[in-house]
Amino acid sequence: MKFCPNCGQPVEIRIPQGDNLPRHVCPACDAIHYHNPKIVVGCVPEHEGRILLCRRAIEPRLGYWTVPAGFMENDETMQQGAARESWEEALARVDIGSPLAIVHVLHAHQVHVMFRARLAGPEYGVGAESLEVALCRPEDIPWKDIAFPSVTYSLERYLEDRAAGRDGLHFTAIDRRLPRPGPGA
Amino acid sequence: MKFCPNCGQPVEIRIPQGDNLPRHVCPACDAIHYHNPKIVVGCVPEHEGRILLCRRAIEPRLGYWTVPAGFMENDETMQQGAARESWEEALARVDIGSPLAIVHVLHAHQVHVMFRARLAGPEYGVGAESLEVALCRPEDIPWKDIAFPSVTYSLERYLEDRAAGRDGLHFTAIDRRLPRPGPGA
Repeated sequence: MKFCPNCGQPVEIRIPQGDNLPRHVCPACDAIHYHNPKIVVGCVPEHEGRILLCRRAIEPRLGYWTVPAGFMENDETMQQGAARESWEEALARVDIGSPLAIVHVLHAHQVHVMFRARLAGPEYGVGAESLEVALCRPEDIPWKDIAFPSVTYSLERYLEDRAAGRDGLHFTAIDRRLPRPGPGA
Repeated sequence: MKFCPNCGQPVEIRIPQGDNLPRHVCPACDAIHYHNPKIVVGCVPEHEGRILLCRRAIEPRLGYWTVPAGFMENDETMQQGAARESWEEALARVDIGSPLAIVHVLHAHQVHVMFRARLAGPEYGVGAESLEVALCRPEDIPWKDIAFPSVTYSLERYLEDRAAGRDGLHFTAIDRRLPRPGPGA
């Protein structure tokens, strides 16, 4: 953010009075612009023991495999967002089940929330953001070609829980920020 | 948003190519500015059977009671955010436990994520954003003076689950948007 979305003047970065973190502040109209983590919603859709995976047609990670997932929109629940992404990426109607994983992707300022899901029927297709969509047996999951660590984490927990006959919600954090040089560096 | 945060020129609202929702688009630099739900994190801190409640010193809902909660910041997990809010609002050190409630506040474009918590010790105080902080017996909770429906929902589920000896995660959605007049209105 370089300019104030409210009045169009250049913003400054400083700690507002009564706050303790630097924010984008507009010296012209006094607006304070906060930046908060964005929610990515997705699901692991199962059909007759197989998992629905999509090969990405867009960057980042074009050509790599993922489960249906994407940024949550305003005016929807997380479950509705996960179902919408399954339709957009894989033309698949899903019934969203229990929450599976919450992954804090700290370097990207994102929280990934993944649900269990079942295909409503055997139909699926290739959405505009996918190169290829497949119902994959667990032993055929292309682990080396998974697009994002949060997807690997979710698939691992899903299969572990399924094998153990349980339905857990798993939390983790991923942090790929580079260490910042200290004041003496 | 009236001006492009990237280049300072006035933005337009239109559906970008390949999208299906109206977005803020800059005709000068072609940036697309997405708006997504913000996460509010909080907790229900318990100490010796009592619940820590804060009376708000700030708008909205100044003078009404809440549990410690606030906007999640970048570079923290939801659990860290809930603990930070407990410190800021009630000078209380808490151990965050299991997830309790996820409330989609659709009209506010917010997702409220509440955790169970325990005070690390009997110490607490009145933070800058609170008028008063109290350890409240369940029968003394001021239900008519609770600040937000998500707080009422979380306290109700917390006490129900505690009485039943379980540890559930509860989802709900709240939608106070006014119905919009149709195209013929």
